[in-house]
Amino acid sequence: MSIATDKADQAVLALSQVMNKQYYPHFHIAPLAGWMNDPNGLIYFNHHYHVFFQHHPYDANWGPMHWGHMVSDDLVTWQRLPIALAPGDEFDKSGCFSGSAVGYNGKLCLIYTGHISLGGEGPHEKIRETQCLATSDDGIHFEKHGTVLAPESGIMHFRDPKVWQQDGQFWMVVGERSLNDVGQIMLYRSDDLKNWQFDRILISHIDPDVYMLECPDFFPLGDKWVLMFSPQGMKAKGYQYRNLFQSGYIVGDWQPGKPFTPITAFQELDFGHDFYAPQSFVAKDGRRLIFGWMDMWQSAMPTKKDNWAGALTLPRELILDNDNRVRNRPIKELTALRKAHVSLTDITLTNQLINTDIESISCELKVEFDLNHCDAERFGLQLAATKDGKQATLLYVDLQANRIMLDRSLSGQGVTGYRSVPLPKTDSAINNKLSFHIYVDASSVEVFINDDLYSMSSRIYPILPAERKVNLFAENGSAKITQLDSWQLGALDQTIMHD
Amino acid sequence: MSIATDKADQAVLALSQVMNKQYYPHFHIAPLAGWMNDPNGLIYFNHHYHVFFQHHPYDANWGPMHWGHMVSDDLVTWQRLPIALAPGDEFDKSGCFSGSAVGYNGKLCLIYTGHISLGGEGPHEKIRETQCLATSDDGIHFEKHGTVLAPESGIMHFRDPKVWQQDGQFWMVVGERSLNDVGQIMLYRSDDLKNWQFDRILISHIDPDVYMLECPDFFPLGDKWVLMFSPQGMKAKGYQYRNLFQSGYIVGDWQPGKPFTPITAFQELDFGHDFYAPQSFVAKDGRRLIFGWMDMWQSAMPTKKDNWAGALTLPRELILDNDNRVRNRPIKELTALRKAHVSLTDITLTNQLINTDIESISCELKVEFDLNHCDAERFGLQLAATKDGKQATLLYVDLQANRIMLDRSLSGQGVTGYRSVPLPKTDSAINNKLSFHIYVDASSVEVFINDDLYSMSSRIYPILPAERKVNLFAENGSAKITQLDSWQLGALDQTIMHD
Repeated sequence: MSIATDKADQAVLALSQVMNKQYYPHFHIAPLAGWMNDPNGLIYFNHHYHVFFQHHPYDANWGPMHWGHMVSDDLVTWQRLPIALAPGDEFDKSGCFSGSAVGYNGKLCLIYTGHISLGGEGPHEKIRETQCLATSDDGIHFEKHGTVLAPESGIMHFRDPKVWQQDGQFWMVVGERSLNDVGQIMLYRSDDLKNWQFDRILISHIDPDVYMLECPDFFPLGDKWVLMFSPQGMKAKGYQYRNLFQSGYIVGDWQPGKPFTPITAFQELDFGHDFYAPQSFVAKDGRRLIFGWMDMWQSAMPTKKDNWAGALTLPRELILDNDNRVRNRPIKELTALRKAHVSLTDITLTNQLINTDIESISCELKVEFDLNHCDAERFGLQLAATKDGKQATLLYVDLQANRIMLDRSLSGQGVTGYRSVPLPKTDSAINNKLSFHIYVDASSVEVFINDDLYSMSSRIYPILPAERKVNLFAENGSAKITQLDSWQLGALDQTIMHD
Repeated sequence: MSIATDKADQAVLALSQVMNKQYYPHFHIAPLAGWMNDPNGLIYFNHHYHVFFQHHPYDANWGPMHWGHMVSDDLVTWQRLPIALAPGDEFDKSGCFSGSAVGYNGKLCLIYTGHISLGGEGPHEKIRETQCLATSDDGIHFEKHGTVLAPESGIMHFRDPKVWQQDGQFWMVVGERSLNDVGQIMLYRSDDLKNWQFDRILISHIDPDVYMLECPDFFPLGDKWVLMFSPQGMKAKGYQYRNLFQSGYIVGDWQPGKPFTPITAFQELDFGHDFYAPQSFVAKDGRRLIFGWMDMWQSAMPTKKDNWAGALTLPRELILDNDNRVRNRPIKELTALRKAHVSLTDITLTNQLINTDIESISCELKVEFDLNHCDAERFGLQLAATKDGKQATLLYVDLQANRIMLDRSLSGQGVTGYRSVPLPKTDSAINNKLSFHIYVDASSVEVFINDDLYSMSSRIYPILPAERKVNLFAENGSAKITQLDSWQLGALDQTIMHD
């Protein structure tokens, strides 16, 4: 236990006493209080799942980065552990930035970016970033070992190491902004986590406007390799790349000692407003899972007034489909959260708004439409909605645009605009089903279309107090819902553990 | 003066005493009271412009059709004349349906459809329709001459004669639903308006779902002929054909005695919610002008409670462009309506809603955007808007969809949904301007994009009392308005003339 982490734990505990929890999630990982961003160090180690996260425990704004820490046996029920890393040493003076975890010689090892500000402000700030190592015997308390990998001379942006073990070696991908402002992912290898050899540039020049690739991750999925990362600099293009930064992937082939051979272009992984910096890990049964940060830089974060900001997405399983698209869906363990169940069948909507009695404060919904009986211009759901629908988050099919829209125009404070995905085409005149799988949790909506074809994750902030029910609607025509299942979801046990 | 028209005049005058004028237009043609639909008998004759219209003077619902009547010297200031035609004779027992006007031997001649209901209801109603003649020496009082053209045996739907004079003959187009339910336009000719010879079928089978072509019109424009009509039965397809029925045109070549040779497919003329049954006429200076009915069958018409329903569009000039598209724009005479002028320049909007002080109850707006300085996801105007924008008609550019949207989701009572047109592409990096020319009149919005590239006409019904100002907005980014001119528009003089 370091003085710095102890002080941070005391600060965040004190801050948690003066929180307003009106928007605080019931079943998502969020900071006890203060600020959270990227998930870090995700690992199943010694029979526990560990989730670390970028954390500022002193207030709800981004600040010198610590690593928050939670553990779980089942990925559903989480326990809060003491803050794992606090900045302030010579090599991480200004922050313990994002990184990953591996087990080595029975120890839980964190490889993270030591961030040092060298003065200047905003785009003129000079920084130094190196990859650092910290290890733990008990999985709770970490000992720092300082820098293990520094960038080439002149490189400032060099961060977010993701380490894995393969073929008797450790491998690390790191994001780098080159001297001529090109985003690239560097590959290194090591026998001992301390001495790292440069292997090659895995990818570079994915887009002329991209100047940095953050949070790289590289892992096998199906019979391919997936290079997942969060590019900075992409310009919006129609419906694509609408958030400040993106998160996505390139699928290709790779084996140790060889170059990565892409077989797809960059594709976005999630299509909502608030999804960034996903990191993957392997579940005990071998599934490839991710958590993402369910927010976005420069997003409205009205919870800062409530003394906290930031949440992670639900844990999601990745699947590679036959078109080499990486799909994601909520892990099956989440069904353990289900409490009261309500099922509705065969609802036909014609130019109307129907109020259901279903609360959408902390709930899961599965909704199936029969598109052969839908001709309304817009039809779908209002979530976290007042009876009159004047405050609501809209999830609907737009048959003019032929898209599925997640629209925050009426969601509440601070948020605007829609995100959308194409309406899936089916070639069946008989079976033309569309399904929405939805999780609403106080200030978040996660939607999975046709199981895992598309996901959309967005934060919402209904002005409270207000009813937050589910409404159904169809405008200028009809729509048919064949099945609507809803479950109220129980709170996770986020016990605070003190040592 | 017939007893039937006199009775109708008294009825509509009485009804006008108990109207609520909250949504009544200030500068559009609307019924004194009661119901209005299609414009009829449009003509410049003996130094006056005549506008007749389908009219039910006894209440605000559609009923046995009369012809209302207005005249003008300038197309801006209108005088109300006595009802011109009332139904009830053997040949027009159930209604004097739509038709047109020509001058012949110094008389103003109306050719209209005598409608007879033969029993049955809805789709099972049996009807008989013939084209009838009525003439007037003074342009006010009309003498009926009965049926001049009957359909072939077995045809029920046979209506909306449009007559013109050319090469020493009269020509007439009529819409017909064939015995096998195909919509077609029939061409006839005559030397005296009384004896008509079948010439040919001008067009048929424009779409497999179309069962009737209403309100045909056929006229030269530029060096081509335009066949304008209102098809019934078209199915919605993406952004197209979204209203219950459409109005549009086919451009082609024609000369008397020859077939019509189309050189374009059917195209919609206006892209709003409420535009139907346009009829053309020739201005005294030779321009081809139209009025349309600014409503749609099955549209919400909350003014029925106020004892009136229906309005015509502004008079608009038609132009054929180089791509054989028929464009329409407000006639230049309308500038005479302008009163108080406010001009704003160089407004940059960044993630904000700006309230202007401009009333949009009876106004004209010209707004020019510099698209090279617009990157907001949605940007544009809120019309008839409250300060907070919670009630407003939205006219905006959607840079995700790359379309211009006229959205009634927040317009008020009874109306929903959006209509849209593509965002025009320009190839200039220097001059990338987009202009909106807008008329708001109590319960209507007419928008002209880039002068006459697209028009959108929709009715709106803000819940009153409420502020109805102009707001400007940009969501998730910036937008630049280089110029915004607004004029409050003065009321027309709709004097009631009694003989």
